[in-house]
Amino acid sequence: MRTVIAVDAMGGDHGPAVTIPASVDFLAEHPEAELLLVGLPDVLAKELARHNPGPRLTVVPASQQVGMDEDVRSAIRTKKDSSMRVAIDLVKSGRAQACVSAGNTGALMGTAKFVLKTLPGIDRPAICAVLPTRKGQVYALDLGANADCTSEHLLQFAIMGACLVEAVEGKARPTVGLLNIGSEEIKGNEVVKAAGELLRKSPLNFYGNIEGNDIYKGTTDVVVCDGFVGNVALKTSEGLAKMLGDFLKEEYTRSIFTRLAAAVSYVVIKRFRRRVDHRYYNGAALLGLRGIVVKSHGSADRLAFRTALTRAASEVSHGVIERIGVEIARLNELGLLSAPAPAPATGGEEAAA
Amino acid sequence: MRTVIAVDAMGGDHGPAVTIPASVDFLAEHPEAELLLVGLPDVLAKELARHNPGPRLTVVPASQQVGMDEDVRSAIRTKKDSSMRVAIDLVKSGRAQACVSAGNTGALMGTAKFVLKTLPGIDRPAICAVLPTRKGQVYALDLGANADCTSEHLLQFAIMGACLVEAVEGKARPTVGLLNIGSEEIKGNEVVKAAGELLRKSPLNFYGNIEGNDIYKGTTDVVVCDGFVGNVALKTSEGLAKMLGDFLKEEYTRSIFTRLAAAVSYVVIKRFRRRVDHRYYNGAALLGLRGIVVKSHGSADRLAFRTALTRAASEVSHGVIERIGVEIARLNELGLLSAPAPAPATGGEEAAA
Repeated sequence: MRTVIAVDAMGGDHGPAVTIPASVDFLAEHPEAELLLVGLPDVLAKELARHNPGPRLTVVPASQQVGMDEDVRSAIRTKKDSSMRVAIDLVKSGRAQACVSAGNTGALMGTAKFVLKTLPGIDRPAICAVLPTRKGQVYALDLGANADCTSEHLLQFAIMGACLVEAVEGKARPTVGLLNIGSEEIKGNEVVKAAGELLRKSPLNFYGNIEGNDIYKGTTDVVVCDGFVGNVALKTSEGLAKMLGDFLKEEYTRSIFTRLAAAVSYVVIKRFRRRVDHRYYNGAALLGLRGIVVKSHGSADRLAFRTALTRAASEVSHGVIERIGVEIARLNELGLLSAPAPAPATGGEEAAA
Repeated sequence: MRTVIAVDAMGGDHGPAVTIPASVDFLAEHPEAELLLVGLPDVLAKELARHNPGPRLTVVPASQQVGMDEDVRSAIRTKKDSSMRVAIDLVKSGRAQACVSAGNTGALMGTAKFVLKTLPGIDRPAICAVLPTRKGQVYALDLGANADCTSEHLLQFAIMGACLVEAVEGKARPTVGLLNIGSEEIKGNEVVKAAGELLRKSPLNFYGNIEGNDIYKGTTDVVVCDGFVGNVALKTSEGLAKMLGDFLKEEYTRSIFTRLAAAVSYVVIKRFRRRVDHRYYNGAALLGLRGIVVKSHGSADRLAFRTALTRAASEVSHGVIERIGVEIARLNELGLLSAPAPAPATGGEEAAA
């Protein structure tokens, strides 16, 4: 079966100028894939004219756009024909198996929840991203969808993260770490302590508490935290990496001599940058929905957006949603999950953080 | 008046091998200062014999030591003659104006709270550290003393952080940022949203919500968060910096050619390292106590521990405690603080995170 991915071609800081060339690159690499490019037809046509997209790229028209700062309510209520909404609708209708957007996170999560609904047994979808570590990479969630979480939510995140790693990385029984402020069981706030108890009882391969420095050490395959903590940790990392990069650049461009040192170090610096280049880690999974949705960084360039498309294709081919469904059902039978709350009718309209 | 600082000479991963040379260095730089070196006399004598400490360093004997993993209850109940406890007692009795320890954070905070008590109007002391930013430096608190906080606690942290910056940096009306997951007022968890309201009503120079990346951007002078989030952000930063440093080192030592590039880049790398060298930022203030207590990183070396001593001396000479007291009283009169809770009799024995 052909993998069909809907692309919100208007989303992100650069819109079609990035999403279209990235789509063309992706198709060249994935001969089994097909893309549905959603957006304003005129705007897309102009950019498409510069490329040779071939027959596996189809334009699906949408007359509106969701702004990068637009409120989720406004996006859902007044932008029913936005490129973002139409891309998600294509997943809902089954015409696409996944959608990718670099649009604003809150609107994307809110609209996806509203249109696709959550999986049975999952109260709240979570944002799961991949980060580089000393040993390889780690999947961390939630990175910002849920500012207030219960211990049950953290357990659900752990299940979803483990299923994703098992499916996409082909790793059996991935280790799960609970982000905390100490390794002892008594450490942490009340929610995290209770989540630790739930995780110890669960059939997951629970490593135990981990601390912030364990994320980049690669201590576990999955890191679980609430969306507030995860978002702060992620953005703090971005800020620190940017500062260190700027400082290094400043020192290397300080004088003619340091510029010479930079020239001599060219290969070293290039290899170093490649190892931590966030573009190769772009594309966060919105997990827990009845459909695959991947969020690209808003500032993604051609390479980064292509990575996000590849991630969506990988989730499709590895049946991530089905695996999460099976695992949740198994834990439900074991009585390890609280009864799934019925999806609230207005759930999708709540502001996602 | 001479500044007298009590030093827990046994604390930290290296004990007297670091604390004594650092003390000697500190005294050479601070002709007005005097140190009370607390620890096992035999052990201290052995290390002191290698240096020329001079008359401004006095040994105060203590027969016990608090272990780096020791529980706060055990430290308070069974180690009444530990170097840590005696150093804090010296502050309580007024013989020293501050104490510095590289011992375990939980035991230090718990013992300090138990012995010194909190300032009127302060419910919970907080850990405040200095971090480098692109513009200079930022004071961040709480970094791990309080895993569960109320919005009032966050307001108190903001007041203490602002007082510290005003006093030590001589900066009038420092800006205060509330660490959150978005800049809009509606963002964040319930506690943070309520804290935002309190901060907007306060006479502090409240900048508003900031995000993780603002920490290292240097957007504000003070960053306020609960101890869980702060600890995760700090340790995540440590882990990321370590990983990036290791990667850079690996690339520079990969071959004879890259080693040559490293040699050519020696000055650049040295200057870069100097700018972000954590040893120059060592020494976290335990704020909110009726006395100055500075916590050094456990793994501090001679230079780092000297930085912590210098920080304590600066807090003494700038009257940080008095300033916090005045500011809290002022806000109390304005009715902006909830009535100070009486210090619980067993408060100091609670486990500090």
